[in-house]
Amino acid sequence: MKTESITQKGEQASCHAATPEGIYIISSSSAVEDASQLHWAQQHLRALGWQVQLDGDALAVHQRFAGSDAQRLAAIERALNQPHDVVLSSRGGYGLSRLLPFIDWKAVAQSGKRFVGHSDFTAFNLALLAQTGAISYAGPCAAFDFGVEQPDDLTLDLFHEAMTNQLEVLSFEAEGSDAVDTRGVLWGGNLAMLCSLLGTPYFPQVPYGILFLEDVGEHPYRIERYLNQLWQAGVLAQQQAIILGQFTGYHLAEHDRGYDMQAVIQWLRQTVKKPVVLNLPYGHVPLKATLPIGKKIGVATEDDMAYLLIEEHHHE
Amino acid sequence: MKTESITQKGEQASCHAATPEGIYIISSSSAVEDASQLHWAQQHLRALGWQVQLDGDALAVHQRFAGSDAQRLAAIERALNQPHDVVLSSRGGYGLSRLLPFIDWKAVAQSGKRFVGHSDFTAFNLALLAQTGAISYAGPCAAFDFGVEQPDDLTLDLFHEAMTNQLEVLSFEAEGSDAVDTRGVLWGGNLAMLCSLLGTPYFPQVPYGILFLEDVGEHPYRIERYLNQLWQAGVLAQQQAIILGQFTGYHLAEHDRGYDMQAVIQWLRQTVKKPVVLNLPYGHVPLKATLPIGKKIGVATEDDMAYLLIEEHHHE
Repeated sequence: MKTESITQKGEQASCHAATPEGIYIISSSSAVEDASQLHWAQQHLRALGWQVQLDGDALAVHQRFAGSDAQRLAAIERALNQPHDVVLSSRGGYGLSRLLPFIDWKAVAQSGKRFVGHSDFTAFNLALLAQTGAISYAGPCAAFDFGVEQPDDLTLDLFHEAMTNQLEVLSFEAEGSDAVDTRGVLWGGNLAMLCSLLGTPYFPQVPYGILFLEDVGEHPYRIERYLNQLWQAGVLAQQQAIILGQFTGYHLAEHDRGYDMQAVIQWLRQTVKKPVVLNLPYGHVPLKATLPIGKKIGVATEDDMAYLLIEEHHHE
Repeated sequence: MKTESITQKGEQASCHAATPEGIYIISSSSAVEDASQLHWAQQHLRALGWQVQLDGDALAVHQRFAGSDAQRLAAIERALNQPHDVVLSSRGGYGLSRLLPFIDWKAVAQSGKRFVGHSDFTAFNLALLAQTGAISYAGPCAAFDFGVEQPDDLTLDLFHEAMTNQLEVLSFEAEGSDAVDTRGVLWGGNLAMLCSLLGTPYFPQVPYGILFLEDVGEHPYRIERYLNQLWQAGVLAQQQAIILGQFTGYHLAEHDRGYDMQAVIQWLRQTVKKPVVLNLPYGHVPLKATLPIGKKIGVATEDDMAYLLIEEHHHE
């Protein structure tokens, strides 16, 4: 897989890039296992020119969580009232689901902060969209993605570009994708987390949407069961396109007898009859794009490539 | 755990017991792995006096499924039009979810057949209830439970009693349960399957319900995430009682730091404030009751015991 970020830097960037004050790192899900991860993350982000500040409870631990529910809610509230304009989650895991009713979503939207996270953070992204329509980001996490000596360079670049409005087009090899050329609101994230919001007030209604999905450690039959639920709930019929990211970390068994992700994708296409785009660089893998959830974007495929038009700058 | 089925046999039984014509075994989910399982099942059921017939595709195989979608739908349709009044699923696994829109639920309800199954079969039980209000049964499966030389005697007895209307009260040790004495419509089954229906037309609305749940191979954080979804979807607040069956087959990790099923149950009680009954003999374990989904029953606890009043015979 080759991923290019086709950006217009230089003059355009200086015209359109935000001037970020910095990044504030919070822990809203599972506990960070190793403090050194956040030290590495700070170092890599500072090397790109960002100011970085850790929330006081970024390393808190309560059971498997990064602090009690009250601690993590307080961290989110502090994130709204500090000066840095990007709020980056330290990691996923589990923990946001049970906080959703206690987060002041209007205050999150009004803060104007750019919240970024992964996996469990899908609950935050989608609840914010459902409750306010505000944009937030699916992307890397501080500890999981940047918390090593050598993080994935492209993941770091894509994060930086997305946070400074410089990522205009995300292109990726997408052999086997359906023909599509459309626009719509981008949304999605982790499939299991997305489905865990169905039926609740935190599941966004996105007609004419562009839905992207990824997951880890779920057997294809469980991935199909989630997709089946989205289909039967009427969600997939409302989409302009379905973009599949990376589905990893599962094990096929002898009794699957050839049933695999290809069989799931075949079933999806036969059943839903919406354009399916494959191989989005997003998932529980080192290379992941930073994607604006709730933003209207374009998506097109041509010659085994797919293009997401993230920023449309009107150059005069 | 000690499970008693306090039944009134003899005169009452002869007054009220149905006279079943027999049992028809179908495969609607995953493929039966070993034909000998269905031979054993037939033998055990015939020893109790039942006529038993295997559906012609009970041993069909397509990928991981017990036949193609069309084959399994045809098996369900054949089950409606054969003379035996009990239709017993061979096993769970995965496969019913994607059939739900293609099953003629009205015809299932009008057939008057008693459908019984487990795990994946929760999709059938709940879709039938949602679409028609008709009763069906959560219970053992032919291959999984009866497909061995020595099946669990009590599971077999409870199945037989439920199918002949002789199971009046199911009592079980339920230490640590909340005080409760109420009536409501019994529903539930496998937690993951139940949540996989949320947002779809196959999720029943059961106000004042009595919800029972079990699961296997799901870490407590995932069980909590499912319960959290049911809470935030407003489902749990509508229940008169929540009955937890057996949650088995998961592995705690060092980083859980004490977070376990007890922590989940504590969170559930603090959050939902509904009576919680523990230790229902139902789940992915040898001993499982056969329970009428969609039927109004009573539930009470006293002195560390719980009682489900399944049949209320009015003895004059």
